[in-house]
Amino acid sequence: MKLVSFFNQADTNIRPGLVQHDTVIDIGQAGALLSLAMPTSIQQIIENYATIKLPLQDIATASEQGKLAAASYPLKQVTLVAPIPQPRKNIMCLAVNYSEHAQETAAHREHGGKPPTQPIIFTKAPTTVNAPNGKIVIDPAVSSEMDWEVELGVIIGTAGKNIHETDAMQHVFGYTILNDVTARDLQSRHKQFFKGKSLDGSCPIGPWIVTADEISDPHHLSLQLRVNGTIKQSGNTRQMIFSIPDMIAVLSQGMTLEAGDIIATGTPSGVGFTRQPPEFLKPGDIMESEIEQIGTLRNPIVGV
Amino acid sequence: MKLVSFFNQADTNIRPGLVQHDTVIDIGQAGALLSLAMPTSIQQIIENYATIKLPLQDIATASEQGKLAAASYPLKQVTLVAPIPQPRKNIMCLAVNYSEHAQETAAHREHGGKPPTQPIIFTKAPTTVNAPNGKIVIDPAVSSEMDWEVELGVIIGTAGKNIHETDAMQHVFGYTILNDVTARDLQSRHKQFFKGKSLDGSCPIGPWIVTADEISDPHHLSLQLRVNGTIKQSGNTRQMIFSIPDMIAVLSQGMTLEAGDIIATGTPSGVGFTRQPPEFLKPGDIMESEIEQIGTLRNPIVGV
Repeated sequence: MKLVSFFNQADTNIRPGLVQHDTVIDIGQAGALLSLAMPTSIQQIIENYATIKLPLQDIATASEQGKLAAASYPLKQVTLVAPIPQPRKNIMCLAVNYSEHAQETAAHREHGGKPPTQPIIFTKAPTTVNAPNGKIVIDPAVSSEMDWEVELGVIIGTAGKNIHETDAMQHVFGYTILNDVTARDLQSRHKQFFKGKSLDGSCPIGPWIVTADEISDPHHLSLQLRVNGTIKQSGNTRQMIFSIPDMIAVLSQGMTLEAGDIIATGTPSGVGFTRQPPEFLKPGDIMESEIEQIGTLRNPIVGV
Repeated sequence: MKLVSFFNQADTNIRPGLVQHDTVIDIGQAGALLSLAMPTSIQQIIENYATIKLPLQDIATASEQGKLAAASYPLKQVTLVAPIPQPRKNIMCLAVNYSEHAQETAAHREHGGKPPTQPIIFTKAPTTVNAPNGKIVIDPAVSSEMDWEVELGVIIGTAGKNIHETDAMQHVFGYTILNDVTARDLQSRHKQFFKGKSLDGSCPIGPWIVTADEISDPHHLSLQLRVNGTIKQSGNTRQMIFSIPDMIAVLSQGMTLEAGDIIATGTPSGVGFTRQPPEFLKPGDIMESEIEQIGTLRNPIVGV
C-alpha cells in the first residue's frame, strides 16, 4: 500500500489517504462509507497497524471494485504533505553511509575518506519536514551553501529496544524518499551536524510511505538526484555501508525505537559541495529526488 | 511559579500542578473548583501562557487563601515526572559551553581544549526523558561508561525564528534542571554525539519549571553535581561561553524554535571520564543535580 497525508480545497484538514493508480482514497471517508472506524493520521495508522491492516485492505478492495468513488480524488487535485507531517521526534540520519560519498567528502571531514567502522548518527529537527512538492526557501542571511542529499527513508512500525539484526526487518513499517538538504557552511561551522541539518523545510519527505511488503529488497533500489533535470547523484541502496538491519540494531541498543520513527539511511556520492567548483542550490532550481519502486519528490528552490 | 507534571495513587493520570511551599495544587481540579477552564498538560500551558497566566495566578492566590484544600496534595505524597514528559522534539544541547570543561576534555575531543568559537549543538531523543527522582538503568551490554553532566535547562515559551540576541529572553518561558547523562564509550565510537547521548532514561529533568519571572539572573546560578554525597561538579552559569541569548539567536537562525522546546545549556567541569582514574556511574550510586533557585534532582543508578 501507498499511504499519504493530504488535503484538498473541499477540506483543508490534513488526513490520511491510500493511493491507488492516480487516485487518493480518503481513508476516513472510505471508513465511514464501509462502517469501519479508521484512524485520523498516518502516525495512528502506523501505531495501530496490527488491527488497521485488514480494514485498510478492505478499503483497497472496495475501491478496486469501484465502490468508493464518493471517497476518491484524482491525485492531481489534492495537495500532498509529508506522510508524517509532524514526527514526534527528530529524524535520525546516517552520515557517510555510502563508500563513494565517504571518498568525495574526505577533504572536508575528519574521516579521511575511509568508510566509518560504526554508524555515525545525527538528527534533523521535526520543523525541517517539508512536503514532497514543497518549496525550499533559501535565506542567504542564514546559509549560502544549501546542498542536496537524496536518501531512502525507513519508517519504524513495531517499537523495540536492543533489536537483533535478524529481527530488525520485522520492525520496519515501510519506506519513503527524503532529501537531507544541508547547509554546508553551518554544518562545518558548528562541528556537530544538527544545526546545519535543521533549517526549516530542509527535509522534503514522501510522496508516500510504501509499506514494507511491497518492496521486495530495500537494499537493491536505484536512487537519483536531479537539479533542473541534470543528474547529480545516481546510486543504489546496495552500496550502503551499514544495512538497514545494521542501523536498526545499533540505533536500538539501549534506545527504544518507536512507531513512526524516521531513519534516513545516508546519501550516495554526487553532492554539491565536493564538486569542482562546488555547486549549491539556488532560487529557481528544481530539485528532484527519485527512488525506484517508490516515486519522486519535486521541490522548487525559492528565495526569501 | 513552579510548574510540575505529576500523578498520585488516587489518580494515576499525569497532569499539571502548581507547587506552593510543600504542596502540589492539581491545576485541573483547582480550575474546576474556581470555574476556570485549564489545560491538561504543561505543554499546553506553555503554548497558551498568554491567556493562562492570569487564571494560574488566580489559582495561586486562592490556594494561598486556603480555598483549594480539595485540590492540594502534599508534595511528598505525589510522584513527579519530568515537567514535559514527552517533548515534541529532541532536546537541543550545547557541547563544551564552559571553558574549564573544554580544558578537561581536551585530550578526548577534537577542540584541543580551546573554547568553541561557535555553539556546538547535538540532540537527545525524547525517549531519554526521565523523572526528577527516576531510576537511571545501566546496561553493561550497552555502555560501561555512563557519566554525569548537570545543566541548566531553558524552556522556550514564545515561538520564533531568526531571533535577535536582544529579544531572546522574551522567548524564554522558564528554567529547569537536567542531567545530560552520557555513554562516553558510545559518544566516542559514533563520532556524532546523538547515539551516546540518547540512551533511554538518560535525561532526568525537573523537579519543576520555574517561570522566567522568578529567576532574576539565569547567568548567575550555582550548579552542583554530587555522587553519593561527594561533590563532583561545582560551577556557576556565569561561566557559560555562549549565553542564553547567544544560543537562542544561533539556534533560531533559519530554524523555528517552538513552545516547549528544551535547550540544555552545557555542563561545567568535573565530569567523570576526564578524571584520573576515570569515574563512571554504577548501580547503587545516588546522583544529585542541584541548581540554585530551582531545586535538586535525585536519581538512583540501578542495574538492568
